[in-house]
Amino acid sequence: MINDKLPKIWYGGDYNPEQWEAPIWDEDMRMFKLAGIDVATINVFAWSLIQPDEDTYDFSALDAMMDRLHASGVYVCLATGTGAHPAWMAKRHPDVLRVDYEGRKRAYGGRHNSCPSSPTYRLHAGRIADKLAERYAQHPALLIWHVSNEYGGYCYCERCADGFRRWLKGRYGTLERVNQVWNTRFWGHTFYDWEEIVPPNAISEEWNGNRTNFQGISLDYRRFMSDSLLDCYKLEYDAIKKHTPDLPVTTNLMGTYPKLDYFKWAKHLDVVSWDNYPSMDTPISMTAMTHDLMRGLKDGQPFMLMEQTPSQQNWQPYNSLKRPGVMRLWSYQAVARGADTVLFFQLRRSIGACEKYHGAVIEHVGHEHTRVFRECAALGGELQQLGDALLDARVEAKVAIVYDWENRWGLELSSGPTVALKYVDEVHKYYDALFQLGVQTDMVSVEADLSGYDIVIAPVLYMVKTGYADKLKAFVSAGGTFLTTFFSGIVDEHDLVQTGGYPGELRELLGIWAEEIDALLPGHTNQMVMKQELGALDGSYECGILCDLIHSEGAEVLATYGSDFYQGMPALTANRYGEGRAYYVATSPEPAFLQGLLGQLCADKGVRPLLSTPEGVEVSRRVKDGRELLFVLNHNAEAAPVELGDVVYDELLGGGQLQGTAKVPARSVLILSAT
Amino acid sequence: MINDKLPKIWYGGDYNPEQWEAPIWDEDMRMFKLAGIDVATINVFAWSLIQPDEDTYDFSALDAMMDRLHASGVYVCLATGTGAHPAWMAKRHPDVLRVDYEGRKRAYGGRHNSCPSSPTYRLHAGRIADKLAERYAQHPALLIWHVSNEYGGYCYCERCADGFRRWLKGRYGTLERVNQVWNTRFWGHTFYDWEEIVPPNAISEEWNGNRTNFQGISLDYRRFMSDSLLDCYKLEYDAIKKHTPDLPVTTNLMGTYPKLDYFKWAKHLDVVSWDNYPSMDTPISMTAMTHDLMRGLKDGQPFMLMEQTPSQQNWQPYNSLKRPGVMRLWSYQAVARGADTVLFFQLRRSIGACEKYHGAVIEHVGHEHTRVFRECAALGGELQQLGDALLDARVEAKVAIVYDWENRWGLELSSGPTVALKYVDEVHKYYDALFQLGVQTDMVSVEADLSGYDIVIAPVLYMVKTGYADKLKAFVSAGGTFLTTFFSGIVDEHDLVQTGGYPGELRELLGIWAEEIDALLPGHTNQMVMKQELGALDGSYECGILCDLIHSEGAEVLATYGSDFYQGMPALTANRYGEGRAYYVATSPEPAFLQGLLGQLCADKGVRPLLSTPEGVEVSRRVKDGRELLFVLNHNAEAAPVELGDVVYDELLGGGQLQGTAKVPARSVLILSAT
Amino acid sequence: MINDKLPKIWYGGDYNPEQWEAPIWDEDMRMFKLAGIDVATINVFAWSLIQPDEDTYDFSALDAMMDRLHASGVYVCLATGTGAHPAWMAKRHPDVLRVDYEGRKRAYGGRHNSCPSSPTYRLHAGRIADKLAERYAQHPALLIWHVSNEYGGYCYCERCADGFRRWLKGRYGTLERVNQVWNTRFWGHTFYDWEEIVPPNAISEEWNGNRTNFQGISLDYRRFMSDSLLDCYKLEYDAIKKHTPDLPVTTNLMGTYPKLDYFKWAKHLDVVSWDNYPSMDTPISMTAMTHDLMRGLKDGQPFMLMEQTPSQQNWQPYNSLKRPGVMRLWSYQAVARGADTVLFFQLRRSIGACEKYHGAVIEHVGHEHTRVFRECAALGGELQQLGDALLDARVEAKVAIVYDWENRWGLELSSGPTVALKYVDEVHKYYDALFQLGVQTDMVSVEADLSGYDIVIAPVLYMVKTGYADKLKAFVSAGGTFLTTFFSGIVDEHDLVQTGGYPGELRELLGIWAEEIDALLPGHTNQMVMKQELGALDGSYECGILCDLIHSEGAEVLATYGSDFYQGMPALTANRYGEGRAYYVATSPEPAFLQGLLGQLCADKGVRPLLSTPEGVEVSRRVKDGRELLFVLNHNAEAAPVELGDVVYDELLGGGQLQGTAKVPARSVLILSAT
Repeated sequence: MINDKLPKIWYGGDYNPEQWEAPIWDEDMRMFKLAGIDVATINVFAWSLIQPDEDTYDFSALDAMMDRLHASGVYVCLATGTGAHPAWMAKRHPDVLRVDYEGRKRAYGGRHNSCPSSPTYRLHAGRIADKLAERYAQHPALLIWHVSNEYGGYCYCERCADGFRRWLKGRYGTLERVNQVWNTRFWGHTFYDWEEIVPPNAISEEWNGNRTNFQGISLDYRRFMSDSLLDCYKLEYDAIKKHTPDLPVTTNLMGTYPKLDYFKWAKHLDVVSWDNYPSMDTPISMTAMTHDLMRGLKDGQPFMLMEQTPSQQNWQPYNSLKRPGVMRLWSYQAVARGADTVLFFQLRRSIGACEKYHGAVIEHVGHEHTRVFRECAALGGELQQLGDALLDARVEAKVAIVYDWENRWGLELSSGPTVALKYVDEVHKYYDALFQLGVQTDMVSVEADLSGYDIVIAPVLYMVKTGYADKLKAFVSAGGTFLTTFFSGIVDEHDLVQTGGYPGELRELLGIWAEEIDALLPGHTNQMVMKQELGALDGSYECGILCDLIHSEGAEVLATYGSDFYQGMPALTANRYGEGRAYYVATSPEPAFLQGLLGQLCADKGVRPLLSTPEGVEVSRRVKDGRELLFVLNHNAEAAPVELGDVVYDELLGGGQLQGTAKVPARSVLILSAT
Repeated sequence: MINDKLPKIWYGGDYNPEQWEAPIWDEDMRMFKLAGIDVATINVFAWSLIQPDEDTYDFSALDAMMDRLHASGVYVCLATGTGAHPAWMAKRHPDVLRVDYEGRKRAYGGRHNSCPSSPTYRLHAGRIADKLAERYAQHPALLIWHVSNEYGGYCYCERCADGFRRWLKGRYGTLERVNQVWNTRFWGHTFYDWEEIVPPNAISEEWNGNRTNFQGISLDYRRFMSDSLLDCYKLEYDAIKKHTPDLPVTTNLMGTYPKLDYFKWAKHLDVVSWDNYPSMDTPISMTAMTHDLMRGLKDGQPFMLMEQTPSQQNWQPYNSLKRPGVMRLWSYQAVARGADTVLFFQLRRSIGACEKYHGAVIEHVGHEHTRVFRECAALGGELQQLGDALLDARVEAKVAIVYDWENRWGLELSSGPTVALKYVDEVHKYYDALFQLGVQTDMVSVEADLSGYDIVIAPVLYMVKTGYADKLKAFVSAGGTFLTTFFSGIVDEHDLVQTGGYPGELRELLGIWAEEIDALLPGHTNQMVMKQELGALDGSYECGILCDLIHSEGAEVLATYGSDFYQGMPALTANRYGEGRAYYVATSPEPAFLQGLLGQLCADKGVRPLLSTPEGVEVSRRVKDGRELLFVLNHNAEAAPVELGDVVYDELLGGGQLQGTAKVPARSVLILSAT
Repeated sequence: MINDKLPKIWYGGDYNPEQWEAPIWDEDMRMFKLAGIDVATINVFAWSLIQPDEDTYDFSALDAMMDRLHASGVYVCLATGTGAHPAWMAKRHPDVLRVDYEGRKRAYGGRHNSCPSSPTYRLHAGRIADKLAERYAQHPALLIWHVSNEYGGYCYCERCADGFRRWLKGRYGTLERVNQVWNTRFWGHTFYDWEEIVPPNAISEEWNGNRTNFQGISLDYRRFMSDSLLDCYKLEYDAIKKHTPDLPVTTNLMGTYPKLDYFKWAKHLDVVSWDNYPSMDTPISMTAMTHDLMRGLKDGQPFMLMEQTPSQQNWQPYNSLKRPGVMRLWSYQAVARGADTVLFFQLRRSIGACEKYHGAVIEHVGHEHTRVFRECAALGGELQQLGDALLDARVEAKVAIVYDWENRWGLELSSGPTVALKYVDEVHKYYDALFQLGVQTDMVSVEADLSGYDIVIAPVLYMVKTGYADKLKAFVSAGGTFLTTFFSGIVDEHDLVQTGGYPGELRELLGIWAEEIDALLPGHTNQMVMKQELGALDGSYECGILCDLIHSEGAEVLATYGSDFYQGMPALTANRYGEGRAYYVATSPEPAFLQGLLGQLCADKGVRPLLSTPEGVEVSRRVKDGRELLFVLNHNAEAAPVELGDVVYDELLGGGQLQGTAKVPARSVLILSAT
């Protein structure tokens, strides 16, 4: 349990009372109670309030609010407030200001605005975390720490350049090694002195944000920046832990945010928390995948839904309302996939600046007689009723999809073979196929223990790090099913190509050699033609983006290309390796193919869908103390029938006992537990 | 009359003899005469010529040209020439150079290039205006002063930052108040010292030109910059008025140019003048609306058409020729809507630099045997014939549309709910409906006296400034019809949301509450379904962009939404308030709906079309000393019939007497006056 | 012959052994032999290796590689390596770093990265060229010098500003003259001191790369930058020639690369070489035209194909494989049009940095058992068999198309009349028509002697330089056929409009006057309607982009516009002038029209197609010592029949003797020589 002071699904969210006058606070407390809100995240952006200058700290307002919340039965997720530095700090100590991608020294403004190498920032961030932790260590309202906010962005200043050089020394020891892993003989970029190295941005090696002359430099700068921001987090973490060693500490992550290696970060979080902001047209399975990824960051440990909007966002181009029922449905989607909290940004809408059109539990109108508030209050009541029934329940999966931030960096920094290749989209294609099949899936890192899985899927495993090929071989040898795709096994962790034939270290395992890689022009496709029926797969399927031209070196050819000069060459292969099989999908197929293929792989391994559901009905399962909790989420605008078979289920949200064909109302959810 | 020295519609335009050798000037004078040209705007960009260094002023060339024009019967609109500073000034006094939106100090180049806070610029601009006015005060050719040229653009330098801080002190007094109106508790941006405030641009709070973290800061910076450039104008104005208190002074505006608050500027112009550059596919009614807006800047006072092209522009992506007749037609369109001058950019085409492919009365070929010259000369003759018949005539309207630059800033700076909302386009939708109906309309500021109007329309009145709601209530109470739309009444003049329920201070007047605001994805629409027939309105109409979810609080519901979860909620309401009615259009409807609705509102108030005309035939009316002058403008490529009824009209452009069905030739105009 | 040491078509390409360990080199030598490779271009990016600091030069690795290649029978194209400076140089002497278009001082990175005005760069570039030439002057492997690499990009630093001022003094003498040719009276930009002049970039007169306020300034800066980079080339050239006066020197050009005036450059190259990188959807005739342009740079002298990819590129958005046969086909296309070498980038694929996904003869797999290697080796064998049969053969054409970089600069910098006008595309339209007709064409500069041609075509000859109109008149007087188009004859070499009527100095020759120029909106067209049949031309053809409104002043009107207000005005004219005729195409027509027109013009002059071929079959002819070598290139994916008639041909690629209907295999080539 995240904190057993509050043994239920936490409910509440970001609360910024400092933006309001005191009389409003009474109204807030009244409405929190109406809504069943029991957690408020405060102090997220109050640094300038608490520390109005270099030497003054004024906790009086925060003291009062902590006490008031406690008196109102609301617990506190206490932020350190270091997500945006005060204006006085920028004026007095310009080292806190970043140099941006374009090489410009920033002036004061925005958030994500502190240079991670800034001595001023580090000094003051650490100090305020220390003071807060010391002051509130024993406060009865305090549930958890929330360090900074949505860490992100990079800096390219001289201090970061120095830091980068030190980081490189630490990682590589010698400049010779740096030159080697960056292949600086290319274009004669050999460095003879550490000081010659500069950060890769739009005035040196990069352009357009992710185009670069030197993939190795750009890859290492991403690692360094991710580590630098993590250092900032860790110094606050350490300061806090001195005072409250037993209270959990987190910072809110952002799903597939590309700039930080969250698997590395998660090791330093006591509990993962994240902010979920799908837009109206985000695929449901993309949100599901991201929840599963966040759960995977700490090997399945339940996570916190730290932010979602009660209804509307403000920063999308078109900010649609969440339709009636959707907020509840998506809240349970998070819970179904491992969340033990349901928190909002924000509890009361601000009246000025850029987030004033972001939805809130308490809207600008200020009273409870709104659709949004009613839906929030109804959910609040429901969560109170659920108590601890779902807390700490685990998701169990026999299928894992590998996700790797460094692989993404390498892949998307590469110059060629195609700009159409997007890592998250390719991963999502496989995830979506399993999602549609109703198969529970874990999202795992390359460090994950694979032994508990029957099937491991690594879409576009472009970068194969030291030892990973061996891990995969061991997994397959022992009977596992492994699947990877085109443009895999190409480079090592330095983005240096493994010579000797693609897919490099995976070649033996897969039993194929990829001789060439063809990039298709937009609108062009090829076909995957099944050599014979394979489960539901038969005939021909469209494919595109990249087509590897492969030769079998022992693998069985299951499908071939249907056109172009490589017509007849293998497009899908399966290779026996030890007790298991390794599949290679040589191109990017249409969804029907992937559902057919993964359905067959699951069937071969005895991996069963959780439930057979109609389109648009999601299913996920958590298990607590051996009790299965089956979530059935109907994302359709109409009610949907679900076949439960002979088992008799208790429905936990007031649905009584169900059996046979159950009807899930439109945009609603069932939580089923076999009697 | 602008200046009764020349009691006719002035005809001529920008003339840059300094780009040519003397022999050309003789030819110019000859051709001006052929074309009936009687006004030349000179010295617009001759600063560097007149003041070749810090201390030297050489007026000899200007003296000679003034005399020569006078001798040729051509009057002068004399520019001060401060629209672009000399190169020597930039080299010697870099403070005249701006810092741009990207934070870069500019090098010498372009125009709109002077920092409005530059002491050098202010000193020299004031001084040259003073010297010019002193020198030419008594010159017989001098008709009017033309200060600088098309003021525009912003600067973000340190001096402007200082100026901004002073401006803020002047407006708000205390830093506490600044923090309050900017809501700087958001993201902890509280300022504790004036020096901490920096201009909002791409290295601080803004990006992409109109995206910002702090709407309040960005709004005030626009006000400050508009005021700063106005200060530059005013210092020249004052210098001139010392010498020629009775001569009019203007500067040429640019229609709906977004960066300057022209209503504020117009108070300091003796006569409004503007540059009209529609492209081939600009809607005719958009040009008409902009003329009406320019007329509205000084409450209906006739204005100057300072620039238009005889045929071709150069800075559009695709610079089409004006078709035969179109130059004349559009000239009369300006006159029909209040212009008392018809002036061109430019009289002779330059041969080098970026405007050499901009049309001119005298083309590169240099002689009068061109289509363009012939059309110019024909119009010149016609205007001579018209004499003072139209001068000082007023446009009278019973319908007003409210236009407000600060509202536009607030609206378009806002983050959410949709990027599809463009202020000018929404205003134009209502204007266009009235235009198609043939109803004369005024464009008015929020400071305008409304008592003379029957109907006031304020599309997307997002920002309701202090006292404006009361003014509207008084207007409606007294029997007026008021209409506003979705996303109105949201914020005060600081862009701070009015809590307590949208549309804020307008809620009582409108008798509705807007609970939520849905943004539609591109390509998505809803429908407005009439509850019963209303004039020509019946059945269902498409609508989109935003849909307010409103509740009637006393207003009559005239139409409801046709689909989505808010199907059946009000989409159009009318509220009785005192003797009048206030309408709320909760979304952005298709044109047919607006024409139907506004047609009915006009009918209800007895506001009649000027004339019933076929599509593409524009009508406008000016009144001089009780005599009505009806302009009928056929924008079609074919002749069009117009029903004049039983009245017998004199046609002022040589058309004799007309009655019954008159035929307006293709791309031609009638000016009718009842006998 | 480029160098008679190797009297055959050179075969090989860029080779970067410094990126590899020694054992790989043995394998390289073995595979070069297998592939018939006899030339390696080395040292292209090895500056930092050879000169690791200010004073140290280490040639040991290069010595060894030269010897090893020689021992393996591979000759050397020796690069000076100055295409990218070492990192230590940037750190120690920041003057080598450029200031970019945005006004930013660059940090170390990339290539094309040296300021051409940098004393450091010039010193060290000259010195290394000198040292290399001294050292290897007598090396038996050395065939040719390759200075730097793909010169390109501009700098805008203070040193370049100074250089620009000096260059202007040299060109114009006085500041008065500069002001005149730049027409600086416009916007009052008169310069009173040389120091006031600054480079035109995004912080001064330009934006978006090719938009400018002052075309004259921007045009001269392009000339200056082209000259400055050429100076850098020349100082290396001179250093080399001291030591090896008889060895040829080149630098690799980039086809229609817009930033350098290659006609001016070519005078300083002993042999032209260029890098040919069409993408999969580049029209075949565009590649052909570019080869012809490169051949034209030195008046038809055979050139070097310095780089092409064996199969895949990396920097296109979508990098398709070259289909089987295409690499060979495109290699012969180069030879057919004048190339005497077939060289690749690159011989072995690098494993790190941005070109690792660029194809190579030796792929990452490292062995010879690949499709790509097999195709390379087959071609290598074929080229060995051909020996010197094709070397030094000349292309003979009776039709010339004029191409001029300065004309392109002027045209594309102009503001108006349309953004749709692209010089290379317009030139290509005419080239393509001739290509489809099978007519051999030369691409020539405005300095070319025209006396040998029957037909000269100058599409969009916007800029007519001093004396060029006279040259054209002399050509036509003597019986030649000249054709030009809309928007021609507009400006002189300073981009100053020629007053007195378009097309300026060409007006008499063409017998027309262009009164106006209409720009069509996207998607809009007009029609060219033939007044009577003209060869294959009859009826009506679509046209667009710009329509000149012309009057005949003696020219025969062959076609008129079909619609709009200028319907019936001339759209195509022919003017008798002396013994010849001058055609004017007043708009941009569809391909069918141009093929018809040019077919007729050729027929009139007795210019015959080389061969009549089906669509997709290219034909070109070289002549050696009176022997005709006819290349027939089938770009189709299917075999194509070609009518050879009664002549009996030897086919040089092993096809034996051919007569009558020959079948050219899919994507294959015949080289025919009449027996």
